[in-house]
Amino acid sequence: MSKNTNPVRGTKDFLPAEMTIREKIRKVILNTYLQYGFSQIKTPIMENIDLLLGGDGGDNSKLIFKILKRGEKLDLNVDNENDLVDSGLRYDLTVPLARFYANNSNDLLPVFKSIQIDDVFRAERPQKGRYRQFTQCDIDIINESSIKAEIEVLYVSAKALLNLGFKNFTFKINDRRILNEIILNAGFKEENISDICISVDKIDKVGLEGVRNELISKKYNENKLDLFLKNLTLVKEKGISSLSKLKVNQEVIDDLKEIIDTINLLSYDKFEIVFDINIIRGQDYYTTSVFEIYAQGFEGAVGGGGRYDNMIEKMVGRNVPAVGFSLGFERLFLIIDKKEIVKDEKEFLALLYEPQDSFLEVIKKMEAISDKYNVNAIEKRKNFGYQLLNLKANGYSKYMLFSEAAIETIN
Amino acid sequence: MSKNTNPVRGTKDFLPAEMTIREKIRKVILNTYLQYGFSQIKTPIMENIDLLLGGDGGDNSKLIFKILKRGEKLDLNVDNENDLVDSGLRYDLTVPLARFYANNSNDLLPVFKSIQIDDVFRAERPQKGRYRQFTQCDIDIINESSIKAEIEVLYVSAKALLNLGFKNFTFKINDRRILNEIILNAGFKEENISDICISVDKIDKVGLEGVRNELISKKYNENKLDLFLKNLTLVKEKGISSLSKLKVNQEVIDDLKEIIDTINLLSYDKFEIVFDINIIRGQDYYTTSVFEIYAQGFEGAVGGGGRYDNMIEKMVGRNVPAVGFSLGFERLFLIIDKKEIVKDEKEFLALLYEPQDSFLEVIKKMEAISDKYNVNAIEKRKNFGYQLLNLKANGYSKYMLFSEAAIETIN
Repeated sequence: MSKNTNPVRGTKDFLPAEMTIREKIRKVILNTYLQYGFSQIKTPIMENIDLLLGGDGGDNSKLIFKILKRGEKLDLNVDNENDLVDSGLRYDLTVPLARFYANNSNDLLPVFKSIQIDDVFRAERPQKGRYRQFTQCDIDIINESSIKAEIEVLYVSAKALLNLGFKNFTFKINDRRILNEIILNAGFKEENISDICISVDKIDKVGLEGVRNELISKKYNENKLDLFLKNLTLVKEKGISSLSKLKVNQEVIDDLKEIIDTINLLSYDKFEIVFDINIIRGQDYYTTSVFEIYAQGFEGAVGGGGRYDNMIEKMVGRNVPAVGFSLGFERLFLIIDKKEIVKDEKEFLALLYEPQDSFLEVIKKMEAISDKYNVNAIEKRKNFGYQLLNLKANGYSKYMLFSEAAIETIN
Repeated sequence: MSKNTNPVRGTKDFLPAEMTIREKIRKVILNTYLQYGFSQIKTPIMENIDLLLGGDGGDNSKLIFKILKRGEKLDLNVDNENDLVDSGLRYDLTVPLARFYANNSNDLLPVFKSIQIDDVFRAERPQKGRYRQFTQCDIDIINESSIKAEIEVLYVSAKALLNLGFKNFTFKINDRRILNEIILNAGFKEENISDICISVDKIDKVGLEGVRNELISKKYNENKLDLFLKNLTLVKEKGISSLSKLKVNQEVIDDLKEIIDTINLLSYDKFEIVFDINIIRGQDYYTTSVFEIYAQGFEGAVGGGGRYDNMIEKMVGRNVPAVGFSLGFERLFLIIDKKEIVKDEKEFLALLYEPQDSFLEVIKKMEAISDKYNVNAIEKRKNFGYQLLNLKANGYSKYMLFSEAAIETIN
């Protein structure tokens, strides 16, 4: 037994019991998104390496699986590994979507609402619960510049979570222009914004004092810093009503308010949306609104997104605004009520026959009950008690002996 | 506009209209396989390169997309490209299944019936209708040595095709031991079998005379060849009844007959299964029964499979028999009745609102009709006639004006 039969390092095999739940989650999310006017698309798992390395990926572009060039014999005499490759595995679904839109926009509706439920690949250091191949569920609205796009992706994402059985979840929303304004108003420069945001992003972990210490160690002016942190604290405490005092553009405030008010009116108290100045999100490509979603049972966000109005322009040569929201499939899988989600699915039934039974008749009997159950025709073992345990462990809740008419429950 | 936004060479983007049909095909096939006791699994798209290059892939292993090693800086000073890679993209679903079974057999039922509907990757020369990423639908029964396994995979594959709307399709079945016997009985040696089979495989294209010419050019003895071709012709004309005269093992004949009789009894004349000595199939790993399925509208087989009793043994160290059947998803897609397959699916409806309408009320109206339709809330355009054409081209069959109650058909 010298052969290694483990899956590739950092990836995993999915067994039937887990696949039943994953398929159901996928079906609920897909059908919800379709129900509200989004359209499913699919792009190849490979993209040209220039596209993947070309800018918008941030840290993720360091984690690309690169694929060797094919065709004529490979010239190994190169200085850089990138000379050996021409494509790689996608690390997210947003960059491929932008390419897809650029390539196919003539064949799509003017405002295009896309669904992608597909796998992405990141060569991260393998660790518990984090895999190198994992599933993302993205919706995006392309070519809608108004906040209707924000309202729709938030509303439809909420519907997906409700249909999955989640309750009392919370959207947190922010607009990057607000934090930018507070930074500038404190006297900092445009070019410091990104660096200061990186520190502010840690506020939930290190607290206000921790953020202050980090920014001081980065040599920012203490007076400006104190003014900035005072205003940040004010916004954290007083919320949206404090923003006009801080000279944040009134249109930004009004849009934010309208998104929040509309979603809360549509939520019927089943979920809520709140303004949170601390929602920043790592990706460089977000331009204005950013949001995350928090559900019971998981400490971090189980989904998030925002508006990225400049990414597609680089490919199509004209401005194409876009808003996206991504549900973290693997995180939802961890915290979902697994019994509840499959309770309306067909049950699995073992039809147990003896070696001497006619297999033709076994199949006919399987056929007769397969409308109601998923029926597996299985030879009955001598150790019947053990067989039932084994069936139960594999997701079977019912059995039927071929020679009898009764359907029994496996306890 | 210098950016290349085409998908990677040899791959394609799937647009919404095509995805609607693909999803439905996937759903029908998956639900059919589940209904008859098969269980869905999923393996990573990457496998260790040693496994992929390790023997059973035949020509397909020459078409592997290889992935650069990750981690510490890559040493480019190597003699062989394989020193740069440690994994690759799978070229089929059978090799990963064998590894999956070896890795997880303790957690599975003793006779394991698997479903895989997933993508595979082959770096073939791109040509019309053939892509480098494509979908396969495999079912396999592992650890069942009797012909029950053949009967089940054939029956359940037929059910999937019937549920997809296919009619009057034909299974062709053969057993490699029969052709082997005829070759040996003509006086050829064991080691010639594979080479002779390669020529016989071409009989549908080049005819009996063409096969004879090719075998003569390969320097086979003409007397033996004439006896072999006489017997082959006899079997082609007289079918199974001729086999006992040719000293084919009676158990092989009986098994073949029982598979054919059982399937024909279960078909109720909706499809048929026939013995065909010409069904050989390219893969080296098949040991006994081999089968293909032919449907109207496509010249070649739209699916096929067979028994491979020796492949898994190499990984688990004990004999584990297996039978598999693969439906060619892309071929089925080409010939399926695309209107018929989606006729029971929710229709797509455009809910058309004016810029001054309350978006909150638009969403409420969308919600109210979304049980019955997939509803896309869209701003009404000035050129309404063009907008309707555009909607129709994108799969929308209904529209509704926000200010009115009637649902209209898009003609």
